[in-house]
Amino acid sequence: MRSTGEVVSIGNELLIGQTLDTNSNWIAKQLNKNGWTLQRVTLLRDSLTAISQGVKEVINRQPALLITIGGLGPTHDDMTLKGVAKALHKPLVVNSQALTMIEARYRPMTVPVHLTSYRKKMAMLPKGGSPLPNPVGTAPGVLVRTGHTMIVSLPGVPEEMKAIFKTSILPILRKSSKPTPTEAYVSLVGIIESALAPVLKDAQQKFPGLYFKSHPKGRETGVRSLIQLHMYTVGEKDKTRINQAVAYVLNRLSGSQSPS
Amino acid sequence: MRSTGEVVSIGNELLIGQTLDTNSNWIAKQLNKNGWTLQRVTLLRDSLTAISQGVKEVINRQPALLITIGGLGPTHDDMTLKGVAKALHKPLVVNSQALTMIEARYRPMTVPVHLTSYRKKMAMLPKGGSPLPNPVGTAPGVLVRTGHTMIVSLPGVPEEMKAIFKTSILPILRKSSKPTPTEAYVSLVGIIESALAPVLKDAQQKFPGLYFKSHPKGRETGVRSLIQLHMYTVGEKDKTRINQAVAYVLNRLSGSQSPS
Repeated sequence: MRSTGEVVSIGNELLIGQTLDTNSNWIAKQLNKNGWTLQRVTLLRDSLTAISQGVKEVINRQPALLITIGGLGPTHDDMTLKGVAKALHKPLVVNSQALTMIEARYRPMTVPVHLTSYRKKMAMLPKGGSPLPNPVGTAPGVLVRTGHTMIVSLPGVPEEMKAIFKTSILPILRKSSKPTPTEAYVSLVGIIESALAPVLKDAQQKFPGLYFKSHPKGRETGVRSLIQLHMYTVGEKDKTRINQAVAYVLNRLSGSQSPS
Repeated sequence: MRSTGEVVSIGNELLIGQTLDTNSNWIAKQLNKNGWTLQRVTLLRDSLTAISQGVKEVINRQPALLITIGGLGPTHDDMTLKGVAKALHKPLVVNSQALTMIEARYRPMTVPVHLTSYRKKMAMLPKGGSPLPNPVGTAPGVLVRTGHTMIVSLPGVPEEMKAIFKTSILPILRKSSKPTPTEAYVSLVGIIESALAPVLKDAQQKFPGLYFKSHPKGRETGVRSLIQLHMYTVGEKDKTRINQAVAYVLNRLSGSQSPS
């Protein structure tokens, strides 16, 4: 149950389809590559109720990690930290370290910039939270712990999200990660998925702990049907069993009917 | 509260980052274009517990529509319908109409294909559900109603998902949709988001019912900062107020500081 995570990606633009959520896909890859299991991704609207409710639900499932993405900026619809604070029953308080980071960002500007309430807003963190330096943008990321869960809030601009994740989060994740997955991909041409199904069921029993997933890329009943078969396991560095499973599946299929 | 929807997108491939979930983005666009509000998108693993639990949570929020995507195929890891049935406390039963649709798909194949349990599995629907014809693939979609919610299950192969949605679901949605959104996009160059924030707050008060969202495309403190501003409303066909809001924002900004 350790090394499990969830992502909550926030923004109306995601839910009207204006923006494709590539952020959580990137996080998913990072977690998988580093031996973490992403259990769920939730896309939410810019609504305080939706965010606090959604975050509360995640906390109740007790993943080791919750990453929220988006809603850290200066505008009125950026309310992620308010939502996280509400979910944790904590107040939002000015964090002096965050304020210093933000001031440093505005200092090099040619026109003097006052720290208006909108700018200070980015330094208002849930009580007990720490700011994470943003190497490429203004709003710092935020880390706050509750129970067994580490909550990390990242900005929605992809470059900022990635930069904070790499510099501040990845080193923490690597410390408590499981081994990375061992995997194999096989492309099956002219095999229909319903003929593959019984073979995979048997393979699953023969190789416990291995994971088999078929991705149909063409029509089930098409003459040139194509299936990408993904086999993987977490916790076995040695590829022996994966290789045996590949051989087993191919051997079984060579004896079965083919539509072409 | 009517005309609200949720999407549940199912598949381990989404949560290890192997596949980018373009399906729910496409559905989001379709719903938005047709006057529906997508409240939440949830990505879940191929786990019976995860699916039934996730579907139960959606039903408790009582959206008018729940679209599940993925997990309708013949393999052991396709368990969406089992999960939906479990969430509804209904048994899975063979649907004769669905069976006929599936038989018809295999009939043109050159090698005779028997309706194995794996193929029949695609005709096992939650009791009370109806199959939706799949114009381009084998597994039918499924429609089942519970309380105020219409649950629609679509396959994960994008062409099949789109085809079933367009032929069977869109006509239903159009009957009960609200007017489509009226919107405007404005690109703001050299304006930093924290300077835009107070203007948007005032605009929000001046134009109730209009929705303002800023999407920073560059660095907050960069010399050539770029913000895409999206203004929209649902329920006003007339663009007068949107145009007034655009003029108001630009007018206010022309008097404010710019970093370049």
